[in-house]
Formats: sequence, structure tokens, C-alpha cells
Amino acid sequence: MAKAGRRPGQTETREQILAAARGLFAEHGFDATTIRAIAAEAEVNPALIHHYFGSKDRVFVAALALPVNPVDVIGEAITGSREMIGERLVRFFLSVWGNPEARQPFLAMLRSVTSNEQAARMMREFINHTVIRPIAAELGIRELTMSAVGAQLIGIAMLRYVVRLEPLASASDEEVVATVAPVVQRYLD
Amino acid sequence: MAKAGRRPGQTETREQILAAARGLFAEHGFDATTIRAIAAEAEVNPALIHHYFGSKDRVFVAALALPVNPVDVIGEAITGSREMIGERLVRFFLSVWGNPEARQPFLAMLRSVTSNEQAARMMREFINHTVIRPIAAELGIRELTMSAVGAQLIGIAMLRYVVRLEPLASASDEEVVATVAPVVQRYLD
Repeated sequence: MAKAGRRPGQTETREQILAAARGLFAEHGFDATTIRAIAAEAEVNPALIHHYFGSKDRVFVAALALPVNPVDVIGEAITGSREMIGERLVRFFLSVWGNPEARQPFLAMLRSVTSNEQAARMMREFINHTVIRPIAAELGIRELTMSAVGAQLIGIAMLRYVVRLEPLASASDEEVVATVAPVVQRYLD
Repeated sequence: MAKAGRRPGQTETREQILAAARGLFAEHGFDATTIRAIAAEAEVNPALIHHYFGSKDRVFVAALALPVNPVDVIGEAITGSREMIGERLVRFFLSVWGNPEARQPFLAMLRSVTSNEQAARMMREFINHTVIRPIAAELGIRELTMSAVGAQLIGIAMLRYVVRLEPLASASDEEVVATVAPVVQRYLD
């Protein structure tokens, strides 16, 4: 039924929206790009973008083909017992990066961020807006502390999956969780 | 006197050695490249390389034009009171990355590591050999713990100087030290 009811051209429209979004996010950054501007660029009604994606951060995640929305993953990690947030955060992070297919778009992101100021701006605005500010507020910690947590996690990704530094590269997820989670938890306490 | 005594061709010989080293490190990695092999490739006596550089890690640092030898910086940081190592380590790290000129070769390194497996191998072998193993042994901590410390520092570099994530990018060195050093120290305790 859903398939039969699918309007012709829906995939094309979606792609058109994502192409417009990619261009605008790269050119103007995450903050200055509005759903209205993406709609104008893609020549669709803004309501259609809301209908397909729901929010600007979801348009961003889809436009960059990120395998997960950090907002969802982190939202899940910080739900539940506070003293286990560090462990859940590290475990989620490793499960995404540990999946070679899910890892690719993040690797591409790391690459473009180190070589391209446009990409760097896009990412810093996205991360600040969707992760650092809301999560720091929700947990009642400083935004600087929250960005140090982000640095710990992104550094693990760099050394474990990109540089493949030993013994971090060959350690099991459980060993990494046991080593890193208490330290992340300390930031959050 | 020193200048007058400088043999003609010394700079050229040095450059010849570094070019040979860059090629061999990239092709075979840090571990498998010997001073003897660099000497053969550069068509000089191995004793001359020892005379100019002293050790393989110093040839590597010069070949990649790194502004400091991690071995020296970390060696200095771990000398003195144990309970202050975290703070000295973070402070040294920020002072190098905070210098725009010194930062350039490290940025180039990050860029090549994310896009090139040869560069990644070279770096992982160099870091493992000169930082992770000796420092973990000297401090009596696990190598996995030492690499988590490395991940925290490299993540700070990525987010503060490359992505320029706020508020990490605009925070003073002292604020970053106050936030991150206790956590690094916890790894070392």
C-alpha cells in the first residue's frame, strides 16, 4: 500500500532537496542555512522538507549521508541512570565507528574537515548547535566540559580507526569502554 | 668559527638524507626503516646520519619537518612530580598547537593520515614506538591507557584548532588545562 501510494518523483524530489541542502550548508554553514532557503533553492514547498525530514539537523544528517544522527544517539545515551552515561556514550560511539559501513561517511567528514574550512565550519556549527549546547544544558555541565568529552571520543575514533594505533586498534570494545568510560563519566559528574 | 668550518655541501647532504628518509618511511613505515637503509638510499655513510641526527626518531621528526620531537616534549612533561604530569602534558601540548607556525606540520600530518594509509602506518608506528610503549613503561601504566591519553590530546587538537568547535576554540589555554588536565591525570594515576 505504501509502495503503491508512493508518488512518482518522490525520490527525485528528496534528492533535489538534499543536493540544495549540501550546497547551502557548505556555502553558508549550518547556522545560517534555513529550511526556507533550502526549499527555495530546491524549488519545493518548505512544508515538504518538514514532512520528509522533520528538522534541519535531520536534513543535515541525510545530506551528508551520516549513518546516525548524533542527536538521537546522544539523546539515548543520556537517558537513564546518570552514573552510567559515560559508559553508554562510549559504547554507542564504538558501535557506530566499529561498523565499517557506518564508519565511511564519518571518515569522509574527518578528511574534509582537516582540508577544507567550509567543511570545518559546517561541522563546528552542527556539533555546537545539536550536541554541545543542548546536552551541556540538559546535563547541567559547562559547554567547555562537554566539548572535552567530544574531544575524547573523536580522538579515540582517530587513533583506533584511522591511524590504527596499537594497542587501541586491536583492543576489544569492552576493553576500550573499561578504560575510557570512567574518565568520560568524570567529566559528566 | 662554526660557520667558517661548515663543509660545503653539508646542507645538500642533509637534504639528501631527509629526502631518502621521507621516501623510505612512507614506503616501509617507521619500524622497518633503518638508518642503514636510509644511508644506502642517500648514498652516505650511516655514521654521518648518526652525527647529524643522533637517532631514527630524530631523522623522522626532521624528515616530516615536525616543529618538536614528541619524545622530548613528553620526556620533559613526565619529569618531576607525578601528580602534575597531566597538567604539564596538556600545557605543553597546547603551547605547541597554539603556535600557528608550529601547528602547520601537524595539520599536514592529520590531513595525510586521514586520506592515506601509508601516512597512517608511518604515524602509528612512530607514535607506538616513541611515545606509547616507552612512556607507558616508564609510568607503569597500561599501553591502552597511554593511547587513551593520546586520544584525548589529539581530539583536543582536532576540535580546538581544526574544527574550531566552540567554546573549546575560544577558551584560554588555562581554561582548557583546568578542564582537561585532571582527567588526563586520572588516566595516569
